[in-house]
Amino acid sequence: MTKPFVAILMGSDSDLPVMQNTIDVLKSFNITVEVKVTSAHRTPAATHSYVTDAEARGCKVFICAAGLAAHLAGAVAGITTRPVIGVPVDAGPLQGHDALLSTVMMPAGVPVATVAIGKAGAKNAAYLAAQMLAVADDEMAAAVKADRQANAEAVIAKDKALQEKLKNA
Amino acid sequence: MTKPFVAILMGSDSDLPVMQNTIDVLKSFNITVEVKVTSAHRTPAATHSYVTDAEARGCKVFICAAGLAAHLAGAVAGITTRPVIGVPVDAGPLQGHDALLSTVMMPAGVPVATVAIGKAGAKNAAYLAAQMLAVADDEMAAAVKADRQANAEAVIAKDKALQEKLKNA
Amino acid sequence: MTKPFVAILMGSDSDLPVMQNTIDVLKSFNITVEVKVTSAHRTPAATHSYVTDAEARGCKVFICAAGLAAHLAGAVAGITTRPVIGVPVDAGPLQGHDALLSTVMMPAGVPVATVAIGKAGAKNAAYLAAQMLAVADDEMAAAVKADRQANAEAVIAKDKALQEKLKNA
Amino acid sequence: MTKPFVAILMGSDSDLPVMQNTIDVLKSFNITVEVKVTSAHRTPAATHSYVTDAEARGCKVFICAAGLAAHLAGAVAGITTRPVIGVPVDAGPLQGHDALLSTVMMPAGVPVATVAIGKAGAKNAAYLAAQMLAVADDEMAAAVKADRQANAEAVIAKDKALQEKLKNA
Amino acid sequence: MTKPFVAILMGSDSDLPVMQNTIDVLKSFNITVEVKVTSAHRTPAATHSYVTDAEARGCKVFICAAGLAAHLAGAVAGITTRPVIGVPVDAGPLQGHDALLSTVMMPAGVPVATVAIGKAGAKNAAYLAAQMLAVADDEMAAAVKADRQANAEAVIAKDKALQEKLKNA
Amino acid sequence: MTKPFVAILMGSDSDLPVMQNTIDVLKSFNITVEVKVTSAHRTPAATHSYVTDAEARGCKVFICAAGLAAHLAGAVAGITTRPVIGVPVDAGPLQGHDALLSTVMMPAGVPVATVAIGKAGAKNAAYLAAQMLAVADDEMAAAVKADRQANAEAVIAKDKALQEKLKNA
Amino acid sequence: MTKPFVAILMGSDSDLPVMQNTIDVLKSFNITVEVKVTSAHRTPAATHSYVTDAEARGCKVFICAAGLAAHLAGAVAGITTRPVIGVPVDAGPLQGHDALLSTVMMPAGVPVATVAIGKAGAKNAAYLAAQMLAVADDEMAAAVKADRQANAEAVIAKDKALQEKLKNA
Amino acid sequence: MTKPFVAILMGSDSDLPVMQNTIDVLKSFNITVEVKVTSAHRTPAATHSYVTDAEARGCKVFICAAGLAAHLAGAVAGITTRPVIGVPVDAGPLQGHDALLSTVMMPAGVPVATVAIGKAGAKNAAYLAAQMLAVADDEMAAAVKADRQANAEAVIAKDKALQEKLKNA
Repeated sequence: MTKPFVAILMGSDSDLPVMQNTIDVLKSFNITVEVKVTSAHRTPAATHSYVTDAEARGCKVFICAAGLAAHLAGAVAGITTRPVIGVPVDAGPLQGHDALLSTVMMPAGVPVATVAIGKAGAKNAAYLAAQMLAVADDEMAAAVKADRQANAEAVIAKDKALQEKLKNA
Repeated sequence: MTKPFVAILMGSDSDLPVMQNTIDVLKSFNITVEVKVTSAHRTPAATHSYVTDAEARGCKVFICAAGLAAHLAGAVAGITTRPVIGVPVDAGPLQGHDALLSTVMMPAGVPVATVAIGKAGAKNAAYLAAQMLAVADDEMAAAVKADRQANAEAVIAKDKALQEKLKNA
Repeated sequence: MTKPFVAILMGSDSDLPVMQNTIDVLKSFNITVEVKVTSAHRTPAATHSYVTDAEARGCKVFICAAGLAAHLAGAVAGITTRPVIGVPVDAGPLQGHDALLSTVMMPAGVPVATVAIGKAGAKNAAYLAAQMLAVADDEMAAAVKADRQANAEAVIAKDKALQEKLKNA
Repeated sequence: MTKPFVAILMGSDSDLPVMQNTIDVLKSFNITVEVKVTSAHRTPAATHSYVTDAEARGCKVFICAAGLAAHLAGAVAGITTRPVIGVPVDAGPLQGHDALLSTVMMPAGVPVATVAIGKAGAKNAAYLAAQMLAVADDEMAAAVKADRQANAEAVIAKDKALQEKLKNA
Repeated sequence: MTKPFVAILMGSDSDLPVMQNTIDVLKSFNITVEVKVTSAHRTPAATHSYVTDAEARGCKVFICAAGLAAHLAGAVAGITTRPVIGVPVDAGPLQGHDALLSTVMMPAGVPVATVAIGKAGAKNAAYLAAQMLAVADDEMAAAVKADRQANAEAVIAKDKALQEKLKNA
Repeated sequence: MTKPFVAILMGSDSDLPVMQNTIDVLKSFNITVEVKVTSAHRTPAATHSYVTDAEARGCKVFICAAGLAAHLAGAVAGITTRPVIGVPVDAGPLQGHDALLSTVMMPAGVPVATVAIGKAGAKNAAYLAAQMLAVADDEMAAAVKADRQANAEAVIAKDKALQEKLKNA
Repeated sequence: MTKPFVAILMGSDSDLPVMQNTIDVLKSFNITVEVKVTSAHRTPAATHSYVTDAEARGCKVFICAAGLAAHLAGAVAGITTRPVIGVPVDAGPLQGHDALLSTVMMPAGVPVATVAIGKAGAKNAAYLAAQMLAVADDEMAAAVKADRQANAEAVIAKDKALQEKLKNA
Repeated sequence: MTKPFVAILMGSDSDLPVMQNTIDVLKSFNITVEVKVTSAHRTPAATHSYVTDAEARGCKVFICAAGLAAHLAGAVAGITTRPVIGVPVDAGPLQGHDALLSTVMMPAGVPVATVAIGKAGAKNAAYLAAQMLAVADDEMAAAVKADRQANAEAVIAKDKALQEKLKNA
């Protein structure tokens, strides 16, 4: 029987620093992760065979990161019917505006679940993948809820620290 | 026991024509749909109680459509930890560019799965919801695959029709 | 009896450096200030109870700063009917263009008084709050006029300094 | 003694259709309104004398509408220290994007409270003016709250109508 | 022996009206044309086999038209090493700005020769293909030069007509 | 009798480094220059009296530099009927895009001759002023032609240096 | 002796409707006008010889209109040292945003005096040309001042008409 | 008999660092290269005579790099009917967005084959030139295919290195 996992695909290994945020959040939810460097344009055959194989081996969600004319998420979404999350990377002179439009404006029938450009989006890709897995996994759903709660408490703690700081200022 | 369903929230009933595309695709997958007109800004309390209640009653995915400074998807994503899909609507003079940025650029921890502006995005929100439900539902997964196949065949049929037309031209 | 004050809300304590400009200008007008870190998405309940409570305790104007898909000002404007001033913060790869559109393009009925992106806007949020309080406070109105006059004189002084410098060049 | 009022300034009488929305909302709050066609560039002297005179006669808030390189709100904000609300009008080929930036990106010391481009902004300029007057006018504050409530109920009524429609579909 | 030809690929048959301009210009140069409706996302396998086969059968230049997140040209450029010309189509609410960035911002190693959005670009794709074929075909080079000359004469004729018209006005 | 000169107005003395380029080019043509720090918004009265006085004293061309919602050139163009050249300064997070639109999109009847954002524009403002003065000054016309020739020779010299460098590489 | 005149160059006779505004304003100042259809790209030689000849025959100011990658004004500015005014035309899907940037962002040494996109810019090109001629022509200077005065009075008349209309409403 | 070569034209020698990428890739294909600094605006005559002469001497493809209102590629395309490749350079405050639109939005009849802004585009200009030469040169076609293969293998090698690194982490 196949073991469920999430696959992270990157157009270039230069995307790893931003996508490490995705890996870290997924691991905090104990989600099994595969990371793959593959290019929609330079290695389309390798991309195709990896995606097909990963889906067969139990990949439930694909996360794809690319910059510039970012086609990787769309290309993967054309190969698999598993949910594909696209992270536009802010590489190049247009600061990810090109990657955002190339990722999100998909034609009807082949959706890419697009998140924010760069680091915030990299983290949110992992949160979104966890939420998708949690649709039918109550334990994961509870973990996501607990994390959200912790997140809220962190904001409240920052506010408390600020109030202290201002009181003493 | 709760029955799983997808909820569609709209900031205004003027968004219904574009979101009818979402309803139609969801129904083609036999997914139960609830449709709600509610505003992040004008009826925040009603939005909060609907989302909380819907989640308790078994809503698995939320789809939110809004134009201009489109906050509805983000507001719903702050209430629930179920996946939230955002459809930027091309209302107003900036043709949805404002709604796209307001929907997709969410801060870390509260993702919105954003799709294309307007009609293509409205359809894709439904396809994406079906893919999310299919993560743990093999029957739904098969239906999504079959639909993709039909979609591909429609493109091939259009090509054939074009070849005929060109041959006779 | 409640004491009038202005509340500054920030989505993150990383916004404090830019919003210190707001605090400084408000203090120069002897306006009582509360500063709160709270998030429209991560702590919506805390945001709601703070705003409701602050309004009850005499908050006359809310100033909200946020970056990216900046929803904080809009969310606060949906809770209170006091004037809400929005400061788009130039965080993230799109340099505040996303925050500007997310803040200013509010639907009819729930206005946000939007100022410039970043530091100039942070200062102007305070000037605008002072002007609003001055609508019915002649002393404040006189203080705002005096400040404007001082501001004009500073420009004239800079011009004089330049003329000296050019004469001696 | 001077009677308080709100002044609406337009760069051109072609802005009247969109600004009629402002007039209508202000009148719904029983706010006295003056409407003036005057241009920052073509009639700067007339603009200056009108604003100075209006402030002396009791104008509490100025609302300025202009398209293209929309300078009117900024010019008025340089003359008076009363709050100035700017409505960017979507005239010309750039659909108000030029007017938005020309209105909102004011330098420190001379704020313009900017609202959305076009019709939504025209309405919100009036709501914002009413909120500003309500800072020190409890009756107006109550009227603004009542209007917000009515607004919320209208959304809820639209939702009910939709539910009926869907049930019968 | 294979006969040289140019292939035009479209993501949708709705692109035919704009791409008819390409067909017409190519035919005016007596260039053999194949037209194919195929989608990078909906029929990636059909796209791959058509491109591979067309190259083997003697296709010398590929012209690809697509709107929105226009990936077709990039996908084809990843399959073949023949020159690929991309025509961004102004479909959808962003008027082809998304298609332009998705087509032109290709990563190093896989170029797409991008032309203008819409009709002007559709014509220029054909002119550019003719220029490419003319690199090693002196007869084609002469035809391209003659067409350019005719084009110049048409501008001069329009000027003459205008001078007549103005003289008689 | 009045002596002809060109006036340079800046919204802030922080614009001096970029506008020094304007001063230097004007001086290279032996054009008399006045430099003035004055603000359309903070010192509108001082701006008005300076422009009126300068025109009376023989100012033939005004050059205005400003960033953000750059109104200075437009405001000056509303006071004088001498040609006004606007230099959009790339201050602030939007890198001068706001200043460009605020400067160039002037309504009919009050033109601003707009040049490029930043340093290139600052130089070109001076070249353009020299060209305007040269319309009726043959000596200046000859100087402008000579400078253009020198400019061309500098490009040719750079090319020669490059050829040398490449030959020796 | 040569007679002074202004030359209007258009990339295409389809620009005539918008440029008729320029012709009309120039004629209202009794300025002699030549109109020429010529293309920077399609008829570069004709453009070059026309500009050189026109300058020799007494052309004092060139006005150039073009859309898309609008190079005409820049090309003319590279041929002559007379002032060149550029009118970006809102042809094509990007509504003149491309033409604006192609016209205004000229490198140092070769300025183009750029006005607003479309009709407002077409009129202002004529006003600006009149102002340039007026630098050394007191009669023209008086005509420009009179026109500005008439323009102001037209705004004041519109305001009066509005006041009447509102009084009777 | 003329020897075939590719000419690289740059508006300024400051473009050499980015265009060195083009030179290096062309040399890796053993393509003869000429490099020329020449400006569409500052040295139009030198540009014209170089292009005419280069075409006569056997230049098969022109590659043009320029920033800001980048007209060089378009100007060259108006002189020759050989294919012209345009590289938009990210010089100046708008980061190449101006150069991209100025290069790609060419009117019908005079195409510029536009590649990505900056370094990626500089490399791709060379790959595209090689592909054009390969249309009728089987040896070159084989070299391009081999390079593409090596490129793919480099991506696969990076993936392998990443897998090793992750395994050992």
